[in-house]
Amino acid sequence: MDRHEIIKGIVTKNDTKLVLLVMDGLGDLPAGGKTPLMAASTPNLDAIAKESELGQTIPVLYGITPGSGPGHLSLFGYDPLKYQIGRGILEALGIGVEVGEKDVVARGNFATIKDGIVIDRRAGRPATEESAKVVKILSENIKEIDGVKITFYPGKEHRFVVKFTADGLDDAITDADPQKEGKEMEWAKPLRDSAKKMADVVNKLIKTIGEVLKDQPKMNWALLRGFSKYPSLPSFPEVYGVKAAAIATYPMYKGIAKLVGMEVLDAGTTVDDEFATIEKYWNDFDFFYLHIKKTDSYGEDGNFENKVKVIEEVDRNLPRLLKLNPDVLVVTGDHSTPCLMKSHSWHPVPYMIRSKYVRKGLSEKFDEFECARGVLGTFYAVDSMTLMLAHAGRLEKYGA
Amino acid sequence: MDRHEIIKGIVTKNDTKLVLLVMDGLGDLPAGGKTPLMAASTPNLDAIAKESELGQTIPVLYGITPGSGPGHLSLFGYDPLKYQIGRGILEALGIGVEVGEKDVVARGNFATIKDGIVIDRRAGRPATEESAKVVKILSENIKEIDGVKITFYPGKEHRFVVKFTADGLDDAITDADPQKEGKEMEWAKPLRDSAKKMADVVNKLIKTIGEVLKDQPKMNWALLRGFSKYPSLPSFPEVYGVKAAAIATYPMYKGIAKLVGMEVLDAGTTVDDEFATIEKYWNDFDFFYLHIKKTDSYGEDGNFENKVKVIEEVDRNLPRLLKLNPDVLVVTGDHSTPCLMKSHSWHPVPYMIRSKYVRKGLSEKFDEFECARGVLGTFYAVDSMTLMLAHAGRLEKYGA
Repeated sequence: MDRHEIIKGIVTKNDTKLVLLVMDGLGDLPAGGKTPLMAASTPNLDAIAKESELGQTIPVLYGITPGSGPGHLSLFGYDPLKYQIGRGILEALGIGVEVGEKDVVARGNFATIKDGIVIDRRAGRPATEESAKVVKILSENIKEIDGVKITFYPGKEHRFVVKFTADGLDDAITDADPQKEGKEMEWAKPLRDSAKKMADVVNKLIKTIGEVLKDQPKMNWALLRGFSKYPSLPSFPEVYGVKAAAIATYPMYKGIAKLVGMEVLDAGTTVDDEFATIEKYWNDFDFFYLHIKKTDSYGEDGNFENKVKVIEEVDRNLPRLLKLNPDVLVVTGDHSTPCLMKSHSWHPVPYMIRSKYVRKGLSEKFDEFECARGVLGTFYAVDSMTLMLAHAGRLEKYGA
Repeated sequence: MDRHEIIKGIVTKNDTKLVLLVMDGLGDLPAGGKTPLMAASTPNLDAIAKESELGQTIPVLYGITPGSGPGHLSLFGYDPLKYQIGRGILEALGIGVEVGEKDVVARGNFATIKDGIVIDRRAGRPATEESAKVVKILSENIKEIDGVKITFYPGKEHRFVVKFTADGLDDAITDADPQKEGKEMEWAKPLRDSAKKMADVVNKLIKTIGEVLKDQPKMNWALLRGFSKYPSLPSFPEVYGVKAAAIATYPMYKGIAKLVGMEVLDAGTTVDDEFATIEKYWNDFDFFYLHIKKTDSYGEDGNFENKVKVIEEVDRNLPRLLKLNPDVLVVTGDHSTPCLMKSHSWHPVPYMIRSKYVRKGLSEKFDEFECARGVLGTFYAVDSMTLMLAHAGRLEKYGA
């Protein structure tokens, strides 16, 4: 039986407040015996741990490394194997691109290519204004390919979005991205016959972009991935019976929140801004999804020290959140991003839930090892939403 | 593949004896640092723990609070999401009501209503003899509604059963019960068109009951819920190849045992009676389901002290069971009923299994925290039956 059908049958409303605090890529591996969570000074997280049930989550399946989409869908209670969402659509929604029935969107990276080899997948991480100028050049020079309308939208730093508009486009193609530096370009390939035209248009577009940008010092190439049409997802507020708000500073996370029907708040750009936002809107919503991006960014950069600092920055802000007195507070990540690996990983993710109904007393602090031995054990992240609702008294008994 | 199909393919018989001891609502939350299991003096449970594998079970899903039906079906190895059973049928079977193809049964509560508000959902918990008298009044005054034959059966305390008999009745209606006190009456609503008549008859019946009982001091109203026809479940003795007996003192648990095909023994009324019953019938069955009700009742009353006493009473009786030398002994609950919450809850349930094949040595005592860190980890209660059969040497290798 579908999980959401079961929930709909037993969900009930009350005036509790729930907070899901996601530190992106939080889980890590020990370096010199300590993970960033262990190395960080986190008096507030540790105090919460003493009042919480700890556990660790599997975002998708054991050994499966999730992208940001599946990592978040799980935490929102959507089976990530059932609901699959392209990165393109997330990025597009995050920057406010309207996506209709005839559209396929993709995420673009400006990259640096030399002698056919991708030498920098992010073109030296240009400033957002700089890359916006290059997007403007593309917009002026490329309007359509083989009858498919092409629209470009600037994103953060090296990122942009391309929208393809035509009748009958099929998004079932592979990414046009070698994923690693030092490799030759990887071209889009159709995953079924009906997507041949799409792959063809994408590859022609990339070659045209290469022509137009050939004299740019760094942003002289484009990698496109996450080709996707608009997916239809059950509504988070409807299924769970909560008025839900998203507080995030990066487009993709705003995008996924919007996709499930959360209201995306203007959350500024810093961790402090985000905590100020939850304070400001506290009375207006039941459920807050609060997303911290930089734990993941520094994990991907292999920057252990700065990952520690972001964790400490969040810890310093926690008293502001506790002062609001949420009925249910979950602190977790959407996946692990070990500094050692400089990438997302499959490792279980530290998790803790605080409410007045917790079996507390077993755990002393919040880190990977303490969570692995917590009272909640190891569980699938997709189970988090029912746990949160249960702790909020928002689920009736199942069956007589 | 269906779990029961797999089991049928590998199950084998031998002369082992298996005991599933279920302390209803056993799991709890710490109050002043201790749960009832921790506060109770349990030398025998703790001695068994040293010889057992410990773990904790999830009855249905993380965060889902099970009713008694799903809680028990899981322990009997029936997927509670696949097999859904109304409370009416459980209650009816427990008191020996015959249920046929044309029948729909429902559980009734005598309640107290005042100015349209349900002020006591259990009408002050009348004595069983008292409420039987009121059931007799109803039987004499109400024989049918709109061509549907109505039969009343007395139950324990405030409970009774109503049987509706007619061609083509559909049980897909909502409970006629506001679930909480201080609320207006909630009327039955059809869940599909074919159940409109059923909802209509139920609501007319309740109004008629209200008329008939309007001068009763407390039992002046009826709440009806768990409308259900007779479900068809795979046979426990057939699937598992055991001759199975149920030892329980309360109707619902006798009912569910009967439903899966166990033989229900006359078990008296006290914990001592129940242990005497297993002694008496030891040679006649392979599998004993032994149910202790009062751990749950005291949990629902929020009576920590008495929950402790029931656990101690069971503990004192355990040497009688151990003397019989069961090959496999499981001690667990069907769900948690924290005194703090005065209701069933979603929290994992302490579990231990003893046989000569256990990986023993890790655990020192039997309580929620020790179980959370036991060698079995956290697992779904539906997996318990295969574990039990395996420890009894009753399952062949799966696959070549």
